[in-house]
Amino acid sequence: MKVAILTIGNELTSGRTQDTNTSFIARTCHLRNWPVTATLSVGDDEEAIKRALSYAMAGADAVIVTGGLGPTADDITTAAIARAFNLSLHTDETVLAKMKEIFARFHLPWTENNAKQALFPEGATVITNPTGTAPGFALKRDSRMIVVIPGVPREINRMLPEGVIPLLQRTFPEKAAHVITRTIKTFGLSEAAVDEKVADIDFAGAGIGIGFYPNFPENHIVLTARDETESAALEKLDRVTAEVLQRLPRHQIFAYDEDTLAGIIARALTEKGLTLAVAESCTGGLITDRITDVPGSSIYLERGFVTYSDRSKTELLGVPEQIIRTHGAVSEETARLMAEGARAKSGTNLGLATTGIAGPGGGSENKPVGTVYIALADGEHTMCRHYAFRWDRRRNKIIATQAALMMLKAYLAGEETNG
Amino acid sequence: MKVAILTIGNELTSGRTQDTNTSFIARTCHLRNWPVTATLSVGDDEEAIKRALSYAMAGADAVIVTGGLGPTADDITTAAIARAFNLSLHTDETVLAKMKEIFARFHLPWTENNAKQALFPEGATVITNPTGTAPGFALKRDSRMIVVIPGVPREINRMLPEGVIPLLQRTFPEKAAHVITRTIKTFGLSEAAVDEKVADIDFAGAGIGIGFYPNFPENHIVLTARDETESAALEKLDRVTAEVLQRLPRHQIFAYDEDTLAGIIARALTEKGLTLAVAESCTGGLITDRITDVPGSSIYLERGFVTYSDRSKTELLGVPEQIIRTHGAVSEETARLMAEGARAKSGTNLGLATTGIAGPGGGSENKPVGTVYIALADGEHTMCRHYAFRWDRRRNKIIATQAALMMLKAYLAGEETNG
Repeated sequence: MKVAILTIGNELTSGRTQDTNTSFIARTCHLRNWPVTATLSVGDDEEAIKRALSYAMAGADAVIVTGGLGPTADDITTAAIARAFNLSLHTDETVLAKMKEIFARFHLPWTENNAKQALFPEGATVITNPTGTAPGFALKRDSRMIVVIPGVPREINRMLPEGVIPLLQRTFPEKAAHVITRTIKTFGLSEAAVDEKVADIDFAGAGIGIGFYPNFPENHIVLTARDETESAALEKLDRVTAEVLQRLPRHQIFAYDEDTLAGIIARALTEKGLTLAVAESCTGGLITDRITDVPGSSIYLERGFVTYSDRSKTELLGVPEQIIRTHGAVSEETARLMAEGARAKSGTNLGLATTGIAGPGGGSENKPVGTVYIALADGEHTMCRHYAFRWDRRRNKIIATQAALMMLKAYLAGEETNG
Repeated sequence: MKVAILTIGNELTSGRTQDTNTSFIARTCHLRNWPVTATLSVGDDEEAIKRALSYAMAGADAVIVTGGLGPTADDITTAAIARAFNLSLHTDETVLAKMKEIFARFHLPWTENNAKQALFPEGATVITNPTGTAPGFALKRDSRMIVVIPGVPREINRMLPEGVIPLLQRTFPEKAAHVITRTIKTFGLSEAAVDEKVADIDFAGAGIGIGFYPNFPENHIVLTARDETESAALEKLDRVTAEVLQRLPRHQIFAYDEDTLAGIIARALTEKGLTLAVAESCTGGLITDRITDVPGSSIYLERGFVTYSDRSKTELLGVPEQIIRTHGAVSEETARLMAEGARAKSGTNLGLATTGIAGPGGGSENKPVGTVYIALADGEHTMCRHYAFRWDRRRNKIIATQAALMMLKAYLAGEETNG
């Protein structure tokens, strides 16, 4: 089954918004072995929508359309598509009642323009939106299907796998084909490096697709196996996964599939019954922010210190003024004492600390922007690593946070050598 | 002049690469008042390229094409475009000589496939590439122009403004038109609410475009004015901006244009010479993370406390155990004492604190998930607000952080009433 993707909105043709929906939908289709023949974006303009729809339908069995389903006057996707096929619009009373109920539950004032989101072309199948008010819909025209969903990425994240894909599978049944994917999440490996290391593996011959998806600061490798039975696909996938893993440095791989770095750390800390305190300077709170994104993190995260001033490093963590004066706030000595202080002052099993220069200012010849020290103390040993990152301020914070969590993860897995 | 954008590459239709060229080119055109009628992406496939080119040309005066100019066999853009117009290909000897010289200078081995990058359709104008080996080219067909440049973002960053835009300006001379945009950044106003409040303004009649751009948890309203002179456009924009502002609650507007919430707070704290300490429970470090995204934030951010446990609230901030036992860690009493404690223990002018239930667990009937208390202490008064958010864990953290920064910003602007 061939797919075309059409995203609608003036924010796209004006370049104001980076369209991330297209690549998400394209990737999802690609992983299912549904070729994407073209992707298009047009503004909220009826003639442009009609012309784009006709182009998209000429080359594909299914057209996935996003955007322009909001309550305001500039959102005209539903009306434009109805007119393109000479269909009338009708209100779906069930959808309308449910929307009003949501507004009432959250004490939001109901305004009449919201009722627009319950209007559908005749003959359309409604697609539920579990995380927003505007549902989507699908229309069958001859042998083709047009699927329309909102343009909000977080809504698409659920509607695509839960609503759209199953509907397309039912509409275009394929020869029994099981598709299994595996995501290998890496940190510190570039696309070119992975490419070179796995160059000798015959992916095509093994019936495996390989894709590379940068997700700063992580790089995800996605393997896709397709076969007539699930077990055959899984067997192939396992075999090639093993070949890939053999060629990649183990410490740069941190998770598979839906697992996240913070989630793996959460599991390990919980299983081992260990508690953690974090002292952050250059990362500014981003480490505890990521740790506390995991539900239940209060079990192991006792506290965090954002010791942005020298004084706070001394007062809260007990780093001697003398050390900061002699070695600098950004130094291995300070980082080690921060980790040890965070642990000792909090009464936790572990202390994790960062100190560095995020930029753009504050760098020197000896300690340029991007210099970061990360330390982990467990009461017996304190390990410390020096890093030289080379990004802008925000990305230096993100990558230093990732490096700190990688160190903690490796320690919890028994892979980190004390030193 | 109307523009269409066509990006070419299998990495785009497979979703493997996020296409950032399209939004960069679209933004550049939009700011020059050249409407973008459509943007398309197709794979490295001759028929798909021809079909997309024909669609793009039907709706635009100029088509800007990127990608598929590399030396490898899968890059077929030049050949496909030549065949689309029945043009032969010829080698540009100047370009070829220059490429060979670059290879020699960097001691790169010359391979024959590179010569492909010196092939151009007959009649093409070469567009210099100052940062890469593959030049671009332009073709005039009747009244239309097709411009083809490589797909490497850093090469486009220079070729677009230095080569493509001047060429298009010469080819399609226009009556002077000035476009000015203004962004009004709001928090707590939905798209539908804004829409209703400004419904009586005749934007079209005033020659003003209006767009809404949700950027969770912020909503941005963008007004665009076009006129023959800059002063006329500005005058129109100012008049309509004033009308819009009159209809929106002032406390829900926090910034204009490139300003950010953290940036405005940074300016206000610096100007007033005030220092800040932050105590975070449910926001988990996200407040200091946002504050420290601003370069130079160490001037006013003395420290942050991520007091995730009850014990840390008592030990670090001096919140009496008795208060937490009686009123709960998530309570107005605790929030106030956290803000006061953060301030007093740090010796700062201001203390900002959050405590709440981010979810998904931990809620109760009296204090459901999304209950958040935010307090701000200045030594004389402590103000505290109660919020009932209704999102998932991550978004509850984001929106509570925004609410805390909004409270701080209003206080610094003298808009916040103590209570």
